[in-house]
Amino acid sequence: MNDILDKPRKIYVTRKIEFNAAHRLFNPDLSDEENRKIYGKCGSEYGHGHNYLLEITLSGTIDRKTGYLFDLKELKTILEEEIVARFDHRHLNFDVVELEGNVPTTEILAVTVWDILESRLRTITNTEVSLHEVIIHETGKNSVRYIGE
Amino acid sequence: MNDILDKPRKIYVTRKIEFNAAHRLFNPDLSDEENRKIYGKCGSEYGHGHNYLLEITLSGTIDRKTGYLFDLKELKTILEEEIVARFDHRHLNFDVVELEGNVPTTEILAVTVWDILESRLRTITNTEVSLHEVIIHETGKNSVRYIGE
Amino acid sequence: MNDILDKPRKIYVTRKIEFNAAHRLFNPDLSDEENRKIYGKCGSEYGHGHNYLLEITLSGTIDRKTGYLFDLKELKTILEEEIVARFDHRHLNFDVVELEGNVPTTEILAVTVWDILESRLRTITNTEVSLHEVIIHETGKNSVRYIGE
Amino acid sequence: MNDILDKPRKIYVTRKIEFNAAHRLFNPDLSDEENRKIYGKCGSEYGHGHNYLLEITLSGTIDRKTGYLFDLKELKTILEEEIVARFDHRHLNFDVVELEGNVPTTEILAVTVWDILESRLRTITNTEVSLHEVIIHETGKNSVRYIGE
Amino acid sequence: MNDILDKPRKIYVTRKIEFNAAHRLFNPDLSDEENRKIYGKCGSEYGHGHNYLLEITLSGTIDRKTGYLFDLKELKTILEEEIVARFDHRHLNFDVVELEGNVPTTEILAVTVWDILESRLRTITNTEVSLHEVIIHETGKNSVRYIGE
Amino acid sequence: MNDILDKPRKIYVTRKIEFNAAHRLFNPDLSDEENRKIYGKCGSEYGHGHNYLLEITLSGTIDRKTGYLFDLKELKTILEEEIVARFDHRHLNFDVVELEGNVPTTEILAVTVWDILESRLRTITNTEVSLHEVIIHETGKNSVRYIGE
Repeated sequence: MNDILDKPRKIYVTRKIEFNAAHRLFNPDLSDEENRKIYGKCGSEYGHGHNYLLEITLSGTIDRKTGYLFDLKELKTILEEEIVARFDHRHLNFDVVELEGNVPTTEILAVTVWDILESRLRTITNTEVSLHEVIIHETGKNSVRYIGE
Repeated sequence: MNDILDKPRKIYVTRKIEFNAAHRLFNPDLSDEENRKIYGKCGSEYGHGHNYLLEITLSGTIDRKTGYLFDLKELKTILEEEIVARFDHRHLNFDVVELEGNVPTTEILAVTVWDILESRLRTITNTEVSLHEVIIHETGKNSVRYIGE
Repeated sequence: MNDILDKPRKIYVTRKIEFNAAHRLFNPDLSDEENRKIYGKCGSEYGHGHNYLLEITLSGTIDRKTGYLFDLKELKTILEEEIVARFDHRHLNFDVVELEGNVPTTEILAVTVWDILESRLRTITNTEVSLHEVIIHETGKNSVRYIGE
Repeated sequence: MNDILDKPRKIYVTRKIEFNAAHRLFNPDLSDEENRKIYGKCGSEYGHGHNYLLEITLSGTIDRKTGYLFDLKELKTILEEEIVARFDHRHLNFDVVELEGNVPTTEILAVTVWDILESRLRTITNTEVSLHEVIIHETGKNSVRYIGE
Repeated sequence: MNDILDKPRKIYVTRKIEFNAAHRLFNPDLSDEENRKIYGKCGSEYGHGHNYLLEITLSGTIDRKTGYLFDLKELKTILEEEIVARFDHRHLNFDVVELEGNVPTTEILAVTVWDILESRLRTITNTEVSLHEVIIHETGKNSVRYIGE
Repeated sequence: MNDILDKPRKIYVTRKIEFNAAHRLFNPDLSDEENRKIYGKCGSEYGHGHNYLLEITLSGTIDRKTGYLFDLKELKTILEEEIVARFDHRHLNFDVVELEGNVPTTEILAVTVWDILESRLRTITNTEVSLHEVIIHETGKNSVRYIGE
């Protein structure tokens, strides 16, 4: 490599993935009336669903040997194992262990995705890459961002 | 109006709407094994879901008085009453009378939406506008088009 | 060229362009009350505006020498001269001669763009390319298509 | 709720809205020549227009009871009352009190939207949610971000 | 299935795929000067590249048993074998046998993709599905459509 | 200007540009086997290509006279001279002096674009605008962000 990497360069790399899932916003600890007031049509009994679009961002220093922050083929594998396999073509209220006991709002989902990925990335010892940001678009109009704080 | 409309002009007007729904691809007339073979993960027991994006196209001659094909405020009302109210935040296998006894594939959904809208438009007697096309995008990758044939 | 073009191949080529314009939907031949009824907030006195996105499609046979239907650099020049120069950063009710005496609905606009381009293409004698379709997206939700009928 | 919310989680929630407006970039305190030099075709006399797309981001801690940061139905109402009602289908140079005496650039617009929303959010006393970011896309190519600094 | 499919319904199903490829527009049968005149910067010596986005549309009658036109999992496999494996991460002037002796314009590419898929679909004997349309977007601004004529 | 700019307002302005280029991920200092392991199909001999989409963000205080952060016409000229002229319709491994001796990953490209623009902006002495962020989307799925750290 030439002089571009003579000083360390902090970089952010984002990968988008999608999954299609059903959910119902309903808190069993609350009365039906309170549920209706808080969740409206999102509490419809059998659930509804979304094409969830996720943006997963890692940060760290560009590797002098590869010119990469992190091998995106490896990231793709991690995201398929940890996120797609868990959430895609599922009903978030019934099929996902990590969400049990929670109302599967997009806020809760973003935190859950962060916790899962953060935990997985810590098992990769030969890298200093960090999870920087998880964004989930529930629709084209609504999205949620979590940065681990 | 000036000479632009001195000859009749056939025009196509498209309005996009969205609804978020859950569905499960499962045919109760078939064995579980056959269902798995045909529908794969789309047959997941509790269902999954999508942000369905629809493109509804009307055709006809531009009105000399208004310069419109059809009042889009009226079309918006029709689409909200006929489509959004029926499908949005619903589970297509349980909540929609018109789909009863059918596997709610996007193909079936497109035909159903066509039939509903075609029937409603026939009740509007002071216009010669026709339903031209129904497109449904199930995801950013898959879509289905029906033109009434 | 090899055998791909041994038989003539009919092809459709689409180029997208944009212009940003103001307009007011108001028909001076009608009463204020009728205008309000027909055009609602689109008749707001000083006008409002849009980022108009156009899709212009030509059709014809692929040229054996170039592998092109039509030189897109030349099409770009034509679209800049005929469309962008006429409509971009303009108020459609005051600044565009071709729209005088018309309510600048998207329907009227699509027909006007067709007439302008059709007329210009007829001046190009060394080609058999035809104008096939003009689509105008007024917003991300509404669009109009005209095919010269 | 289970342990996901046992520690407070800071979350960012974004809602997109659109409005269609006309504007003219022209500073009456400057000479015509200076206006032309600074604003070019954006100073065209009768104005032009855009489909403005806004991304409004709130931040705060996820509510343990609802799993929400903030009720998006309430946010939608606020945005319709404060933003859509004020700016949609308007001419920014004539119809918006808050912009009087200002050149309605996207920069000025972003700050104005921030000030309006920040002021409205302060009237909601039963929440600790904060306005975090206002992004306005004037076209698909240009956007402006303001974060209250 | 209920009465929705009591009459045969002709349906169009579209699947999007992408590939990333390099190409150079250069016709070795023409002089350098003529090449420059026709292809301009698209003839740059080492080539340039695109994220090609394809829309592949099949048509036919909805299957009464499955509610599908055609199994999209099978279509996905066909597109990966025939299109992605041939064109993705390739230089169209050097790596694709089917394009040899042709200038790899988007027009030529669309016809080539059509011929490959049409030929493959004819090997599937248990279906009456037809290839209806191939659209290739070379950039967000330019696209080409071929329907087999 | 009225009171909106009575206090200085820090603003971020983003402009999107695109260029179409070929590249090959290959590090001549490594063995063929190591290259294959690291870069996979991205190392294909003749290269492949992308429609690169860039988001360039400047930050600073809104100018009281113009209501702008920075004249976007001037920014457009800078981006055409520094970025489009250098990278568009090029092969990044052969045609770009600034990338010589580097593997043209998107990470390296983002840093290079930053260095070029930062250096150019320092030559503009009558402004306090700063380069804030460079984002490069290599595909619709992968992007890289650099903020000069």
